[in-house]
Amino acid sequence: MRQFIILGHDAAVTPDFTLNDLPGSAGRIDVLCRCINSAFLLSHGLREDVRVHLVLQDRYAIRLEGSELQYVNPDERSTAALLKRALEKAQEVDVTMEQRSSPGIYIKEQGFSKLLERVADEAGVVQLHEDGDPIETVSLPENPLFVLSDHNEFTVDEEQLLQEHASHRVSVGPKALHADHVITIVQNVVDRSQRQ
Amino acid sequence: MRQFIILGHDAAVTPDFTLNDLPGSAGRIDVLCRCINSAFLLSHGLREDVRVHLVLQDRYAIRLEGSELQYVNPDERSTAALLKRALEKAQEVDVTMEQRSSPGIYIKEQGFSKLLERVADEAGVVQLHEDGDPIETVSLPENPLFVLSDHNEFTVDEEQLLQEHASHRVSVGPKALHADHVITIVQNVVDRSQRQ
Repeated sequence: MRQFIILGHDAAVTPDFTLNDLPGSAGRIDVLCRCINSAFLLSHGLREDVRVHLVLQDRYAIRLEGSELQYVNPDERSTAALLKRALEKAQEVDVTMEQRSSPGIYIKEQGFSKLLERVADEAGVVQLHEDGDPIETVSLPENPLFVLSDHNEFTVDEEQLLQEHASHRVSVGPKALHADHVITIVQNVVDRSQRQ
Repeated sequence: MRQFIILGHDAAVTPDFTLNDLPGSAGRIDVLCRCINSAFLLSHGLREDVRVHLVLQDRYAIRLEGSELQYVNPDERSTAALLKRALEKAQEVDVTMEQRSSPGIYIKEQGFSKLLERVADEAGVVQLHEDGDPIETVSLPENPLFVLSDHNEFTVDEEQLLQEHASHRVSVGPKALHADHVITIVQNVVDRSQRQ
């Protein structure tokens, strides 16, 4: 199982954004949509052994399960509609316990700290950071949990938590890249390591 | 200089599509938008040493110049608006000679065969294909021109042209990936080879 946590620092936490302006009205939720695309999509289908956790403004955790997902297409707009549905769910019902908003998508009121503590129990935490060690020089854990930030830097508190939990801090290359590109490269590195 | 040719077999060749339905009304022009994102965008800016050629239904070639581009944002919708503007230009003026539609974006009535012949003169042609040799085992040309197909297979004619012009046929990994993910990985491989 490969897992990713993506920290969406500005992402909308209410569903009242328009799909016609994802970068603006939805607080750069387009970034998270592209991350979902990179984490799950293969040319012919979905990666079933992948789980993604999105953290929206340290308030909601949205979990996406590759083995259950349906209706995930490559374009940003249709993925944003699924996230909007999850945020609607959080307005309709109590989400202090996790609730399903559509097949394979679950939302819970939970911040990064609690989420990381829970998930780190069953996975090897790897922070993705442009200043980390080159990924090709690192021996990745068997069940990796990659943590990365959206278009913003990690906050001081997030860095502190990651220092406590992460076994590695790795970089995917010499240039600073967008989060979705980083995920694409990580998936490829792990794919190739499993072929060898 | 790194160049890419992306073959958009179904992509719209008229600007009468809606930005609200890129996968449907625009003939999967969303695929090309994501390829542009992967080819040019860094976390803080654009790759200036990159040129992308999109071939739309073997009828129009749209050239994007990294050193001149402006208004290119990561989201699909804003990139699609730039391609729509290029197709409007092709309706307004004669584009048998290349015409500029916005900063760094040029359109010309030209198919893949003529485009490849012209560009191959100044570059080493590399076909990207899931059945190719692993990219890490190949010595890439100094000024590579990577040719890849959208969500469709290469046609028989395209394969024939590439057999004539390409020095290599390479794959980026063991899994078949979307074109934009392939570009992200290629950019990373070349970035890392230049660091060494």
